[in-house]
Amino acid sequence: MIKEALRIREKRGKYRNTAFLVEGPHLLDTAISSPHAVIKRVFFTGDFGGRGEGQQLLRRIVQKGDAGDPGRGEREAVLLEVPEALLSLLADTETPQGIVALVSYPVAALGDIAFRDAPFLVVCDGIRDPGNLGTIIRAADAAGADGVVVLPGSCDAFMPKTVRATAGSLFSLPVVHSAPGALADYCESAGIALVVADVRAAMPVYAFDFVRPVAVAFGNEAHGPGKELIARATERVKIPIIGKAESLNVAMSATVCLYEAVRQRRFSGG
Amino acid sequence: MIKEALRIREKRGKYRNTAFLVEGPHLLDTAISSPHAVIKRVFFTGDFGGRGEGQQLLRRIVQKGDAGDPGRGEREAVLLEVPEALLSLLADTETPQGIVALVSYPVAALGDIAFRDAPFLVVCDGIRDPGNLGTIIRAADAAGADGVVVLPGSCDAFMPKTVRATAGSLFSLPVVHSAPGALADYCESAGIALVVADVRAAMPVYAFDFVRPVAVAFGNEAHGPGKELIARATERVKIPIIGKAESLNVAMSATVCLYEAVRQRRFSGG
Repeated sequence: MIKEALRIREKRGKYRNTAFLVEGPHLLDTAISSPHAVIKRVFFTGDFGGRGEGQQLLRRIVQKGDAGDPGRGEREAVLLEVPEALLSLLADTETPQGIVALVSYPVAALGDIAFRDAPFLVVCDGIRDPGNLGTIIRAADAAGADGVVVLPGSCDAFMPKTVRATAGSLFSLPVVHSAPGALADYCESAGIALVVADVRAAMPVYAFDFVRPVAVAFGNEAHGPGKELIARATERVKIPIIGKAESLNVAMSATVCLYEAVRQRRFSGG
Repeated sequence: MIKEALRIREKRGKYRNTAFLVEGPHLLDTAISSPHAVIKRVFFTGDFGGRGEGQQLLRRIVQKGDAGDPGRGEREAVLLEVPEALLSLLADTETPQGIVALVSYPVAALGDIAFRDAPFLVVCDGIRDPGNLGTIIRAADAAGADGVVVLPGSCDAFMPKTVRATAGSLFSLPVVHSAPGALADYCESAGIALVVADVRAAMPVYAFDFVRPVAVAFGNEAHGPGKELIARATERVKIPIIGKAESLNVAMSATVCLYEAVRQRRFSGG
């Protein structure tokens, strides 16, 4: 199990994009509360298991497994007490605080995403920096998006630096891996507008109607969104630059776009 | 002059908050174009001075000095060819690319800020992280703000990490150091509304009128805006959180607020 966890840490083989390690009680607490995350294995030190709050957290993990849906691969997590040195080997941070868990995300397809109101998706098309990807996922959660679609060329949404940058939001909404063509087909058949943020666009973000069902896409830090996505897009929008700045970075642009959707959907008095 | 530059790098004595070192031709190019920056000394390697683009940059620095206003302390910059090893000593980055300049910002008081239309100021009240402060300055520039006011407790706007995070925007608008009371007095006398972003506020940012003359303030990453500023504020506003995220970080919040001002001022069809 330790060897398997190490393979997952290195993102090799079948575990790429589907399973990841969660470190420390705070982030793990968010994973326990998440309807999307399935906790598979828990590695903890004797010191952690001996403390009251440690015992409470482990009890909640067992309860989550009992209440889970076996169809989604949810079974009781395997709990393993390990020596301090072994835990450090699994951890990415200097101080894993006594606990590291192997978590999986069984959401696999666009069709699995459940919508609350008018569909609202966030698409990452080649976001390379884990900090940017994590920040966009955090903004998507804050803005009330239904899910995040990650297209090829993006960094791994489940690597430790991304997970930390989401500040827990990774566990709040489904993350789906897809391809530009499949996403565009899905949007078309579901009646969802596909809008791409692009510095070269003519339409300011404020002129676009975000009240309708919409998927909002953000592209690569250096090259912008990919050609394939642009070719299939309903519309391209830009964040207007008023001063002398050349641009905003992609995470800031995404936050502006997603909150313009929040304004139109909930605060425009319509 | 080298000793002086090293003291400035360490931000000691009278140079705190007023002078700083700019590394590399790209950022220095932005400084040359800035009406706010005064270039005092230029340290470059023989290799840099021997290249065509290096000579062109040095020539533009001399021209900027000739065209300067002696009343603002603008005189011809002192150009010094130094050995590679000495340049590395001055530089913060691994690769200063052959040139480091000592730049000063003579803007000293709130009254020095020139307004284009209805006043639009951005206030940083205890922003501790240089990346956040730099990102807010970049957003302020992009949104067309007239200046940035830095209050005590914030990190140094002129330290290398902040300057890099502004992506050149530090040179696009005046940065003024003030105190909460002095800022509030100034806003009152100039008829400028002082609005503070605060997660504990009741009013969503979309309900505030940003078309009027306004100063928008952002507070400390952990504790929010200071009591003194809150006590003197015209209004407090929040960024609504729709999903499960606990919050946005301060740089994301600032970008949302400042772009809501852009929308109201330029895209609301009023």
